Amino acid sequence: MVSGLKEIGEKAVKAERILACTRGGIKDSALAAIACALRAKSDDIIAANKIDLSNGDAAGLSLSLLDRLRLDKGRIEAMADGVCQIAGMDDPVGKIISGTTRPNGLKIQKISVPLGVIAVIYEARPNVSSDAAALCLKSGNAVILRGGKEAINSNKAIVQCMRTAVKEAGLPSDCIQLVEDTSRESANELMRMNETIDVLIPRGGAGLIKAVMENSTIPVIETGVGNCHIYVDRAADIDMAVNIIFNAKTSRPSVCNACESLLIHKDIAELALIAINAKLVEKSVEIRGDEIVCEILPDAVPANDDDWGKEYLDYILSAKVVSDIDEAISHIAVYGSGHSECIVTNDYEASQRFLNEVDAAAVYVNASTRFTDGGEFGFGAEIGISTQKLHARGPLGLDNLTSEKYIIYGSGQIR
Amino acid sequence: MVSGLKEIGEKAVKAERILACTRGGIKDSALAAIACALRAKSDDIIAANKIDLSNGDAAGLSLSLLDRLRLDKGRIEAMADGVCQIAGMDDPVGKIISGTTRPNGLKIQKISVPLGVIAVIYEARPNVSSDAAALCLKSGNAVILRGGKEAINSNKAIVQCMRTAVKEAGLPSDCIQLVEDTSRESANELMRMNETIDVLIPRGGAGLIKAVMENSTIPVIETGVGNCHIYVDRAADIDMAVNIIFNAKTSRPSVCNACESLLIHKDIAELALIAINAKLVEKSVEIRGDEIVCEILPDAVPANDDDWGKEYLDYILSAKVVSDIDEAISHIAVYGSGHSECIVTNDYEASQRFLNEVDAAAVYVNASTRFTDGGEFGFGAEIGISTQKLHARGPLGLDNLTSEKYIIYGSGQIR
Repeated sequence: MVSGLKEIGEKAVKAERILACTRGGIKDSALAAIACALRAKSDDIIAANKIDLSNGDAAGLSLSLLDRLRLDKGRIEAMADGVCQIAGMDDPVGKIISGTTRPNGLKIQKISVPLGVIAVIYEARPNVSSDAAALCLKSGNAVILRGGKEAINSNKAIVQCMRTAVKEAGLPSDCIQLVEDTSRESANELMRMNETIDVLIPRGGAGLIKAVMENSTIPVIETGVGNCHIYVDRAADIDMAVNIIFNAKTSRPSVCNACESLLIHKDIAELALIAINAKLVEKSVEIRGDEIVCEILPDAVPANDDDWGKEYLDYILSAKVVSDIDEAISHIAVYGSGHSECIVTNDYEASQRFLNEVDAAAVYVNASTRFTDGGEFGFGAEIGISTQKLHARGPLGLDNLTSEKYIIYGSGQIR
Repeated sequence: MVSGLKEIGEKAVKAERILACTRGGIKDSALAAIACALRAKSDDIIAANKIDLSNGDAAGLSLSLLDRLRLDKGRIEAMADGVCQIAGMDDPVGKIISGTTRPNGLKIQKISVPLGVIAVIYEARPNVSSDAAALCLKSGNAVILRGGKEAINSNKAIVQCMRTAVKEAGLPSDCIQLVEDTSRESANELMRMNETIDVLIPRGGAGLIKAVMENSTIPVIETGVGNCHIYVDRAADIDMAVNIIFNAKTSRPSVCNACESLLIHKDIAELALIAINAKLVEKSVEIRGDEIVCEILPDAVPANDDDWGKEYLDYILSAKVVSDIDEAISHIAVYGSGHSECIVTNDYEASQRFLNEVDAAAVYVNASTRFTDGGEFGFGAEIGISTQKLHARGPLGLDNLTSEKYIIYGSGQIR
């Protein structure tokens, strides 16, 4: 038993009872106060961040990890901006989702309510602390933040500043809490605190998500892994295919909605592959191809069986020639991660079959997979992309941080 | 590794790929065929059930358990009727839930799709086999049934008959499969088959649900436990309170929406308790009361601390006098199971506070908790009552057996 965790859970439940019934205006004032406080305390936060950076440097963290960890005035300003944007959104709580009057006169309404206490487990990106806290606060949920040990000093400074702001706005500071013990034991224990935590959201790489899925007894919203395919159909416009593939692979290779695998109809394989490759060399993308791809593109690296399921998050693309749309759909069913899948085609029937038969959070005809994103879908800020089928699938907006409750107005009815 | 389980999972995935894209009319024909087959084969099913009953008798099963296990012509007719009703409902798959055209011209639609492969783990009630299979089939989900060992012969006969019917209707028989190994190992392994199973639904008592919540790595829809309270406010109509309590406690004490605990405002405690007790004695209900209750009702049994959290499922009711609505709401927050909670009052503000502040799947003013039920809410058949906050809360109808998918129509958009 990690000391203090049980108490954190109990404090969250207590704060949540107040927060759940708090009107939107007060929540928005608290969010505005958080944004102000982040700006006002940015020097303190940057000082704390410097300690994390020098510890990380000493521990030999990679440059890209150190970059994710780094905070400066601009990044803190962006965090504060993000909080303000969330304050400006509609309150997702208290909506009447549906309602009916039954023959016996009972009036039944389904209304949106907060999920309750949400624990967010994340890695070395300190901006997740303010993002997640603001989304949870807006949706009436008390949040328990458990970031990675690399960012602990930054997180302490950010959370301290948010807690003070929330309290000044008249809400319990325990609406936002940080688990300061960053041991593996604390994460594992958090995942089993069913008594006090309603939902667990992991934000991070495949390893973190797998650990949470395996160990958590609390319901989880799985975010993440994207092995996204683009299938270039026989009836594709090749210029369009080239543009979409170049954008989906190279505009930001490190994100989950980037394209990782290419499937090409055999009838246009040669023409399409040469054109695609000619564009991808601009960004030195490595193509890992099956036998036919390697014949057409002498520079391609032969793919092995592991390649088809891989999320590279890098300037690498697997590529395979398929004999028809059936083979493309079957391949995606086996290797896809259920994130975003795209067909490029001008064939009506092929487009409809792909939309109907491919099972993923987002299925595209003739557009880049990079659009799978809360902002691009018009939801505003997002807490991640869900690839599970329960509760919510695709970009998670504020509405997905709510549950529902039936309220029933009677006049003495019995059954 | 229990032999055959992995193969069952793989067969379900294969069947699901066909079922997910099957039109509603074909699914309804399959359901009609199942209903016919159940009726036609009722003698075989009853013969198999006789074996279970005699095994159960020899094993010393309780009379109530044997009664749940028992099938006769009437009960099989009711099972077939249930399947027909499900056939007559709207297809929950393929609904356009929402849609938008983004400024860049992308047309984004959110549509309802099946969850995928659902495993249902249940106990000794063979009618769950046809109920669960029909609900899953209608919602486009392949189902893996894993019933209790007490009902294995009945379940084999029922599932055999359903599989044949489904096949004759042109769908893969593996849309419905039964795990014939009823060992604890088979259940535990099933709970970790994330590769092939999308969602797990336990149907049964608190012990089963707890085991599933603790062991499953697959997302679970928790159904169940109901420690339902009725709070009789100072401003209650006492006759109405008596009627509601009598109905909620005694109309069917063994179900999860029955009332288990009574809270009474101190100002009307004496008057109300005497009237309530006078009615409850008709059914010999035992009242387990706090000190004040026991003073007012000399026949009441003193409650101990365990009583407040108990789901008796019997003619027993705990009772406590509270000093105001705050104490009632706090007591429910601590001891309630988040199922159904009721206030009896004629005070407007008290009714609104109770509806807002009590956190449960269904919160009632002036009506019996027994209405928390798919049929009573107008959803038709239900697969259980969810007391978790993720995915679905309250009575689970066909719509709750679906997920969603975004389909995006583009014309070459890149980001």
